[in-house]
Amino acid sequence: MRTVLLTGFEPFENEPINPSWEAVRALDGEHIGDAVVVARQLPCVFGAAIDAMDTLLREVKPAVAIAVGQAGGRMEMSVERVAINVDDARIADNAGAQPIDTVIAAQGPAAYFSTLPIKAIARDMRAAGVPAAVSQTAGTFVCNHVFYGLMHCLATPVGAGVRGGFIHIPYLPEQAARHPGQPSMSLEMMVRGIRQAVATTLATDVDVREQGGQLH
Amino acid sequence: MRTVLLTGFEPFENEPINPSWEAVRALDGEHIGDAVVVARQLPCVFGAAIDAMDTLLREVKPAVAIAVGQAGGRMEMSVERVAINVDDARIADNAGAQPIDTVIAAQGPAAYFSTLPIKAIARDMRAAGVPAAVSQTAGTFVCNHVFYGLMHCLATPVGAGVRGGFIHIPYLPEQAARHPGQPSMSLEMMVRGIRQAVATTLATDVDVREQGGQLH
Amino acid sequence: MRTVLLTGFEPFENEPINPSWEAVRALDGEHIGDAVVVARQLPCVFGAAIDAMDTLLREVKPAVAIAVGQAGGRMEMSVERVAINVDDARIADNAGAQPIDTVIAAQGPAAYFSTLPIKAIARDMRAAGVPAAVSQTAGTFVCNHVFYGLMHCLATPVGAGVRGGFIHIPYLPEQAARHPGQPSMSLEMMVRGIRQAVATTLATDVDVREQGGQLH
Amino acid sequence: MRTVLLTGFEPFENEPINPSWEAVRALDGEHIGDAVVVARQLPCVFGAAIDAMDTLLREVKPAVAIAVGQAGGRMEMSVERVAINVDDARIADNAGAQPIDTVIAAQGPAAYFSTLPIKAIARDMRAAGVPAAVSQTAGTFVCNHVFYGLMHCLATPVGAGVRGGFIHIPYLPEQAARHPGQPSMSLEMMVRGIRQAVATTLATDVDVREQGGQLH
Repeated sequence: MRTVLLTGFEPFENEPINPSWEAVRALDGEHIGDAVVVARQLPCVFGAAIDAMDTLLREVKPAVAIAVGQAGGRMEMSVERVAINVDDARIADNAGAQPIDTVIAAQGPAAYFSTLPIKAIARDMRAAGVPAAVSQTAGTFVCNHVFYGLMHCLATPVGAGVRGGFIHIPYLPEQAARHPGQPSMSLEMMVRGIRQAVATTLATDVDVREQGGQLH
Repeated sequence: MRTVLLTGFEPFENEPINPSWEAVRALDGEHIGDAVVVARQLPCVFGAAIDAMDTLLREVKPAVAIAVGQAGGRMEMSVERVAINVDDARIADNAGAQPIDTVIAAQGPAAYFSTLPIKAIARDMRAAGVPAAVSQTAGTFVCNHVFYGLMHCLATPVGAGVRGGFIHIPYLPEQAARHPGQPSMSLEMMVRGIRQAVATTLATDVDVREQGGQLH
Repeated sequence: MRTVLLTGFEPFENEPINPSWEAVRALDGEHIGDAVVVARQLPCVFGAAIDAMDTLLREVKPAVAIAVGQAGGRMEMSVERVAINVDDARIADNAGAQPIDTVIAAQGPAAYFSTLPIKAIARDMRAAGVPAAVSQTAGTFVCNHVFYGLMHCLATPVGAGVRGGFIHIPYLPEQAARHPGQPSMSLEMMVRGIRQAVATTLATDVDVREQGGQLH
Repeated sequence: MRTVLLTGFEPFENEPINPSWEAVRALDGEHIGDAVVVARQLPCVFGAAIDAMDTLLREVKPAVAIAVGQAGGRMEMSVERVAINVDDARIADNAGAQPIDTVIAAQGPAAYFSTLPIKAIARDMRAAGVPAAVSQTAGTFVCNHVFYGLMHCLATPVGAGVRGGFIHIPYLPEQAARHPGQPSMSLEMMVRGIRQAVATTLATDVDVREQGGQLH
């Protein structure tokens, strides 16, 4: 049986909860298609988060690895297209570090594209009633950092045949209730969306050609 | 036993569903505090919607009347503060009418304030984990029209002692899935929020003094 | 010769400058149509601002009075439709007062509509290349307060035949340069827009019927 | 004397004007620091735009090349950080092509980072009163296409010692006047911002370390 690794983050920026961890842990152990889900939490810490991801990839040996992270202020499930090789933090991480314009992997490429079928995932989420879109930037904080680290690890022999990517999710309603004017999404909807992302990935070898870009 | 009248609208603007009707009908017959809920649907038609509201007020004789309407694009439950005496429609209503700068009630005042405890409602919704805020405008389409008509009717003897107001609610996720880039809220959250609005209104004689305005 | 009174505000909320005062003072003494402009500054203080406005109306005896105010975050010239009879301040005014849900005029109506030709003004501004729209809310801070006070005074004999209203304007670029992510407009464009508003008002007896509302 | 190449685009998407061309041509021939500006227009056409850029780089032999493009809806000058190796068009280009998920350079890297001092440019623009910020995505249309093509060419021997990058600019006010609810910026402000970008680039060997990232 194939394994799908889902990661979520611990809370950060004074939040008591992180929807990414709540959503993926709800799927831990679930069977989707011919695979079983293993959900794990990552620290919201530069460096340590990638180290934890690398260890997980070696231990879990997943066929698919999807990292999930909180994007407070976004409206919908954001299926990320690209990770870039830079850290530029607006706030300190959970260990107090705030890197500015530092490379993630000194010998790494400028960017990695997701190897998930991002267009099919966004299409299938929407068909399942879950608001979703492809996103052209995962930011420059720990989410982009882990996304880049994941793809950098998958570019080595350990990642042969393994597909990986990143999905940003909105605030939970209980978070938005403390941040007036911010959009949110229910946990049930997030779980449904991520379950769909896994199912679509397992069932899709070649992504669909469907518009998902931005003019700027 | 006191009665609370909740109204929602039929779908409009090519939507197959209107979250306001879905949310209030889920509460039809429910006992909240010492009251029972009567939920009814209004047409999305200038004039006819107010006629239907007037008839309902006379038939149901509620202690509290709350009209609910869809506000596609809003992030959260919007507890409206004021209804203004003008129709100015960006699109046609369900009967094809598109009034521009026409008065709702020729002899009516320029505006009516909600007589619900709007600050307490927004506070209690947020405390219940439901994103919510006071809003300073209900627009100039059928929602504001019904809100004004409701308050205009309650200003007559038929409305003696009756409190009324309006709550705007976001798209449902299934609607936002067809409108990329739009925020949404789950039906369960909307129902919880409206239930709270009813409970808070029944339990609150004098609204709390709590900031809920806008700089502009 | 007729006189047009334009008012702008002193700076507030830690800004060194207020674009509303910069824009109207640039028009002081200018002849527009058959009228001459008198520009005066108002304090950003609840109560005192209306007192100053009342005194100006009695002294200047204008045919048209347009109050202008800063709306940091708005994209375009906002021709306000309605002033409501409530103060609800998110921040303290320049005298330290922060009223919440207090009426502006105890015996006043719930709202006043602008008596400027708001649709013609927005249309003519746009035709002159100035981004502009009608707005359904002037907020609940000192701008709405002065707008309400202006219309309340004009509703007395002193205002017989005098038309009045309110226009909100964006940040200046130099302000937006200190507020990342905020829109702005050049002073030259603001001055052009206000000059157009005056000219259109002087030339328009009956407003045009043109859509300018909001769905919600 | 060193030469700075500035490119702007021809109009697209039914616009009669493109602010990027208006802004750079206003600087054509201007001396900034020890350099002279050469401004040229690019077609808004996939493929042809990069061909034109390559030809310009060979003919003009600039020390600095900055491509500028319209980003309708953005608030401020956007100094782009990264170009990605993909075209994904929401609309057809001026030749009717609408590529989806095609690579720009088959053998090229996933992305190129700007080699302009992007943080110093954003800082100096703001200090000059021009709203500006670093941006993490240039989209997936012809702007990103040209930005990628520019950096891909500069990565060859022809680009030895040449620095390059991309700046997105908002609508002009006259454009926003036709697109209600969209922000804009005056041409004078855009020209001032681009002049500053050139001056800062010529004067800055090593970029400043200053926060300019996004959480997501």
